[in-house]
Amino acid sequence: MLKRFSISLEEELLAIFDEQMKARSYSNRSEAIRDLIRKTFVKEEWEADKQVMGVISLVYDHHQHKLQEKVTEVQHDYHHHIVSTTHVHMDHDNCLEVIVVKGKAREVQELSDHLTALRGVRDGNLAMSSTGKALH
Amino acid sequence: MLKRFSISLEEELLAIFDEQMKARSYSNRSEAIRDLIRKTFVKEEWEADKQVMGVISLVYDHHQHKLQEKVTEVQHDYHHHIVSTTHVHMDHDNCLEVIVVKGKAREVQELSDHLTALRGVRDGNLAMSSTGKALH
Amino acid sequence: MLKRFSISLEEELLAIFDEQMKARSYSNRSEAIRDLIRKTFVKEEWEADKQVMGVISLVYDHHQHKLQEKVTEVQHDYHHHIVSTTHVHMDHDNCLEVIVVKGKAREVQELSDHLTALRGVRDGNLAMSSTGKALH
Amino acid sequence: MLKRFSISLEEELLAIFDEQMKARSYSNRSEAIRDLIRKTFVKEEWEADKQVMGVISLVYDHHQHKLQEKVTEVQHDYHHHIVSTTHVHMDHDNCLEVIVVKGKAREVQELSDHLTALRGVRDGNLAMSSTGKALH
Repeated sequence: MLKRFSISLEEELLAIFDEQMKARSYSNRSEAIRDLIRKTFVKEEWEADKQVMGVISLVYDHHQHKLQEKVTEVQHDYHHHIVSTTHVHMDHDNCLEVIVVKGKAREVQELSDHLTALRGVRDGNLAMSSTGKALH
Repeated sequence: MLKRFSISLEEELLAIFDEQMKARSYSNRSEAIRDLIRKTFVKEEWEADKQVMGVISLVYDHHQHKLQEKVTEVQHDYHHHIVSTTHVHMDHDNCLEVIVVKGKAREVQELSDHLTALRGVRDGNLAMSSTGKALH
Repeated sequence: MLKRFSISLEEELLAIFDEQMKARSYSNRSEAIRDLIRKTFVKEEWEADKQVMGVISLVYDHHQHKLQEKVTEVQHDYHHHIVSTTHVHMDHDNCLEVIVVKGKAREVQELSDHLTALRGVRDGNLAMSSTGKALH
Repeated sequence: MLKRFSISLEEELLAIFDEQMKARSYSNRSEAIRDLIRKTFVKEEWEADKQVMGVISLVYDHHQHKLQEKVTEVQHDYHHHIVSTTHVHMDHDNCLEVIVVKGKAREVQELSDHLTALRGVRDGNLAMSSTGKALH
């Protein structure tokens, strides 16, 4: 259910906000403010080690000896945390592997650390997202 | 080709580093240092609006009227930037859509803003990765 | 001049927001939303290389040979950018020097890099703030 | 005491690193690597709620009714955490107040939240630094 309430902003700050809103393609102020609030909340879910969703991205050279095997092996060790894996062949050498993960924030971070630390992984990062359950 | 060189660290700082290394599952110092350097570099590629890879994650409620259509539509408008899309059904309401994108950093950011701004999208974020070409 | 307008939020998201607001000591919703908007704006001023204020913090060991001299020297080279310097003696070894700087974002970043790179500086960082002129 | 050890980097990655090093004014590789390690460590001290140093920067309009009084009052409530305060008059309206704080990470964060939430504060942020004790 939507709840309506009013806020007051200094004229100049409102002008800044409207400009930001437009630059980021928001169709109205409510939607832009919703996103500012949600962003803060997702950050808090992760800090409080709540049940979260995350997306691990790995860039690696598949010529690196046994790397692909190891990437797969680590994923099997954490198979309860892994939702899906997408593999993209970027060029002759480089792969991008995108792994959707869920679980407690710290466990998911640990899995991401394991994968990123493998020799031959050129970039590894973990995007913090949310199960969306607490968000509306 | 690997190049070997030596660095000197204060004893106590080295102890801290070795502990970090272990906590993050690195098998040796070289690999841990490689990652610190690469991280900084990927950040620079993005700031300099270079050719990059990115991963957009969207959490949204698929019951939201016409949202799925709009998510698809925006992706078609930017189809040159989109490498792959993975869709995960998280629960009765929520979907997670993971979109692998490539292109100039700013264009990719713009696409991510467009998707995130859609009404009903509960969380949207863009993970900065790299084509890996300049990384080794 | 204050402008009043209304926004609508999903009931559950509003509850989350009110909780965040309380945890961060805000006295009302308008003030909390103002701050979310301002934060985004200050970040944009820095990215667009506008006229900004910043605060450089340096932790260093004053026993390090000639370090204090060098810290002072770099500041003189950039004296047009420096507003004030506060020096705190933290313990037997460590000093904290807090330097308020102003100027174009990139120049201020460069100054901060110079100071941070000096041997013996144990921590250096640059907090991005604003001249406040565009904020209300 | 300095400890010397050698690491190996791919030739291309070493070239990237040397370029970064130069751009940020580092005089040698050891110093640049020290800073990468220290940065990670300071972040960990904060996350583990250790004893830290921080620098709060506030931009505010001193015409705002009773704001200066409130800023001072909050500081008195937390006087055990406050090391020093520097006040800069930026223009006719705006002040920058830079407050050096120490204590457990969470308490320091709480103090920063209190100050930032005051009506009339246009920008408030907390830079995470370190007591330097564990860093060398």
